[in-house]
Amino acid sequence: MSFAIGIDVGGTNTRAGIVTAQGAIDLRRRLSSTLIQDRKDFIREIGSLIDELKKAASSQYGNFVGVGLGIPGIFDFKEGVLFASPHFPEWKNWPASTRLGRGWPVLEELSQRIACPLVIDNDANNIAVGEGWLGAGKGFKNFLMMTLGTGIGGGIVLDGKVLRGERGFAGEIGHIVVESQGRPCACGGRGCLETYASATGLFASIEEAPESLAKTEFLKKVSNELTVATMAGAAKEGDPFAIMLFKTMGYYLGVGLASLVNVLGVELVVIGGGIQGASDLFFPDLKAQIKQRTYQETAKRLKIVFATLGDDAGLLGATKDLLLTA
Amino acid sequence: MSFAIGIDVGGTNTRAGIVTAQGAIDLRRRLSSTLIQDRKDFIREIGSLIDELKKAASSQYGNFVGVGLGIPGIFDFKEGVLFASPHFPEWKNWPASTRLGRGWPVLEELSQRIACPLVIDNDANNIAVGEGWLGAGKGFKNFLMMTLGTGIGGGIVLDGKVLRGERGFAGEIGHIVVESQGRPCACGGRGCLETYASATGLFASIEEAPESLAKTEFLKKVSNELTVATMAGAAKEGDPFAIMLFKTMGYYLGVGLASLVNVLGVELVVIGGGIQGASDLFFPDLKAQIKQRTYQETAKRLKIVFATLGDDAGLLGATKDLLLTA
Repeated sequence: MSFAIGIDVGGTNTRAGIVTAQGAIDLRRRLSSTLIQDRKDFIREIGSLIDELKKAASSQYGNFVGVGLGIPGIFDFKEGVLFASPHFPEWKNWPASTRLGRGWPVLEELSQRIACPLVIDNDANNIAVGEGWLGAGKGFKNFLMMTLGTGIGGGIVLDGKVLRGERGFAGEIGHIVVESQGRPCACGGRGCLETYASATGLFASIEEAPESLAKTEFLKKVSNELTVATMAGAAKEGDPFAIMLFKTMGYYLGVGLASLVNVLGVELVVIGGGIQGASDLFFPDLKAQIKQRTYQETAKRLKIVFATLGDDAGLLGATKDLLLTA
Repeated sequence: MSFAIGIDVGGTNTRAGIVTAQGAIDLRRRLSSTLIQDRKDFIREIGSLIDELKKAASSQYGNFVGVGLGIPGIFDFKEGVLFASPHFPEWKNWPASTRLGRGWPVLEELSQRIACPLVIDNDANNIAVGEGWLGAGKGFKNFLMMTLGTGIGGGIVLDGKVLRGERGFAGEIGHIVVESQGRPCACGGRGCLETYASATGLFASIEEAPESLAKTEFLKKVSNELTVATMAGAAKEGDPFAIMLFKTMGYYLGVGLASLVNVLGVELVVIGGGIQGASDLFFPDLKAQIKQRTYQETAKRLKIVFATLGDDAGLLGATKDLLLTA
């Protein structure tokens, strides 16, 4: 019997717990991510969290094999260095002196603090690994995991392994271009999938739409609180403007997924993230675009399913390799 | 000492020869592809070509290990069945009865005819393998091969192996979407990279451009023969319309490549094919778009080079695995 500590660092909350080799999560902890906005605070707080979990687990879960952590941003898996993380702007003043250039050698710093085996990966990769281990991707050796939230995260599993690319920068599927002169993107580019087919995309679609009776009526309906949930609520009640918002999202998701399956040759796409609940509203347009934009054989064989592990996928994925090779 | 027979089936010409384990090509043969427009003719002609090469090689090249063949189209590598091949419309009346649905079990049919080890793959995959073995990709475990010609072909090498996807349909990089409502594509979609950044794309750009003095003057210059070479010639002589054509091509190549490296995480792109020679004309725009549309770390590490094996890449790639595992 063995266990690992899993940590999923998110923009708002950081979740942690111990994970058993069977994939059960216990001793769940939650930390407000406002406490780790600074690099020093991150090392101290995450270090304490790990100490505490190790102590709480004591020996009742068996042999401790190490810590798996997921972090948002551009993370060099090979060297353990973080190069960009939009959700944590204060991490940005990278120590200029690392031998790899301007980045944060977070693997090295946290390893020194906790003195136990540590694996860090991009959070979206961990979600893909988690769903492949125990969720919607179980039993599949090749699939694409797409997480719809504020942005679009991606994890690509090929031949049973996460595609990391040379440095760990692969899988940035939110930044494939769908309109070359389209909406400006936080990445510095334009017309990225993320600017159309995420929560950010939904808000941009509202912004971009011309003033009209339909828009005015829609805004009146959701005036108390404009969220993906209230937009979806309005659409489900038949509001034409809200329906159009999700149809547009579905259209672009289909365009982007068609590109991705044409390149990757996967036959399974797992869709997760907060917007998953509104899937009825965007799924028909998504499917229509894939059918139009892929070869018949590809479209026929492609399965699109929804994630089943919710927020646990990242925690589980972070620890899988530690647990299964232990 | 051992040798294989390599065959590269092209839309216009089919090239063949014997390949040694050192990657030397000898006894080169060329067949007009008009002779193999029919499936029966294909089996007969390719069969005879193989017989002849085996006989011509006799024992002077050592041990014969088999035949490697590259075929254009949507080829199911797992089952050896071809599902679509735009260059060979007459192959299309697929025998309805194959257990895999409407496709041509070309591996099985040709194997029966030649009675020796046979490997068939998509032609673009073979080009990637060839360049990785002995050309511009030598020494790299991860790279993207992009072949610019009438269309855009692609081969993706990850961790030293061609990415084929579940069935062999991966690598269709000409069909990633760069303008969701853009030019209609032969694949049935719209705005695919191929419709902007190939020879077909150059012709479409001419077609699409409004009548103007610049266009009229350009057309007058190339009136004797409108080819990629004459377009490039006009651009090199400073013709502004021709310059614009290649700048547009470079712009879209950059948009498409940015999407691809964001997804695949490769640090090397090898560009080959007939349009390679006009690279000075499209390279600056290509690079500018990649810089704008990828993360700084990605752009900094990405190398873009040109293929070195020309038409031999496909022949060599077709035989590599046969020769190196023999």
